[in-house]
Amino acid sequence: MIINAAMSADGKISTVERVQTRISGRKDRDRVDALKAGSDAIMVGIGTVLADNPSLTVKSKKRREDRKRAEKDEYPMRIVVDSSARTPIDAEILNKGSGKRIIAVSKRAIIADVDRLSEKAEIIVCGREEVDLKNLLDLLWQRGVKRLMVEGGATLNWSLVSQGLVDEIYIYIGNMIIGGEHAPTLVDGTGFVTDMAKLELLSVEKMDKGIILQWRVRN
Amino acid sequence: MIINAAMSADGKISTVERVQTRISGRKDRDRVDALKAGSDAIMVGIGTVLADNPSLTVKSKKRREDRKRAEKDEYPMRIVVDSSARTPIDAEILNKGSGKRIIAVSKRAIIADVDRLSEKAEIIVCGREEVDLKNLLDLLWQRGVKRLMVEGGATLNWSLVSQGLVDEIYIYIGNMIIGGEHAPTLVDGTGFVTDMAKLELLSVEKMDKGIILQWRVRN
Repeated sequence: MIINAAMSADGKISTVERVQTRISGRKDRDRVDALKAGSDAIMVGIGTVLADNPSLTVKSKKRREDRKRAEKDEYPMRIVVDSSARTPIDAEILNKGSGKRIIAVSKRAIIADVDRLSEKAEIIVCGREEVDLKNLLDLLWQRGVKRLMVEGGATLNWSLVSQGLVDEIYIYIGNMIIGGEHAPTLVDGTGFVTDMAKLELLSVEKMDKGIILQWRVRN
Repeated sequence: MIINAAMSADGKISTVERVQTRISGRKDRDRVDALKAGSDAIMVGIGTVLADNPSLTVKSKKRREDRKRAEKDEYPMRIVVDSSARTPIDAEILNKGSGKRIIAVSKRAIIADVDRLSEKAEIIVCGREEVDLKNLLDLLWQRGVKRLMVEGGATLNWSLVSQGLVDEIYIYIGNMIIGGEHAPTLVDGTGFVTDMAKLELLSVEKMDKGIILQWRVRN
């Protein structure tokens, strides 16, 4: 599984007010679009859905056509990790573009919320309080999701990294300082105290006015 | 003025417990030593003094000899930004190696604390509640501090960047994820909401198992 993210030079993915900020440029957005088009599924956390309302669609018509020619769905599957089923019914991710949606909830989700969402997405229940990510990834693998791309946010990234579930991380570093003790960073959560996740730098490329680093996670 | 810092791939400069973590390798530490030796003064915030107790000495004997041959002090001047005069009297920065020390305090410092510290360092009082950094830098410039290097931490970095006082930022990015919503990042403080500090990428170099980015701040 690949995490893809853009951060400021000081590691922030948005401002303290959680306002999404254009961190990368045109070329990087095109790179991300290609990464999406090459994925079987794209996953985000509920925090990102609520803060940014992304559609996670593939923007390039050509790439969508290529997918169809390869007998895939026009859009990769979209997955929300949403323990208590808080995804708004009018969220872009549920409404923009065709293709499968999955909302992964835990057993603390309220049945009425799940019922409502089930009109727009398939619901997978796994985990007691929080979504059991290992279990979810196994279930997704069985459904043919071999290439999974994660688009944040900070909390989901932490859950995945801390559980050793990430293979690679692409980080675009933009030419700005956002700052802020309380601004979301690339990886939040509780954080490592010892035994941090170790990485290996696979590639470095200047892009737009920033740089993109490709790290392999040594699990 | 130059900020120099090492952060994890996710922008953290230490763990949530503020335990200093070896982020960079041998080559990068040598690069930082050369940067120190080439500076007139090295500045840190009180948070860094209390958390890490750095000496900020130049480690290389050859570089110290070179400084002496150039008729400079063996060690660059060391400066603590410490509004309420909390620097411990036994701090490494006040006791290790020869050379001038300055503790910059504001008017909220207690006289007795300032008196005690004045045995080990020159005290500069500037600013009412917080140290007035612009004023401090002017005073330092008048004393011949033309090349000033800042070694953190997150709060001082924010104060300097948000006031437009920084010329360049060197960021070493280490091959690890630290994570943590509450872990200190390269730039903390209140953070920008609009009008972020814009940077220009001057150079990129792989070093040890990470990478070093040199950014110019467009003030």
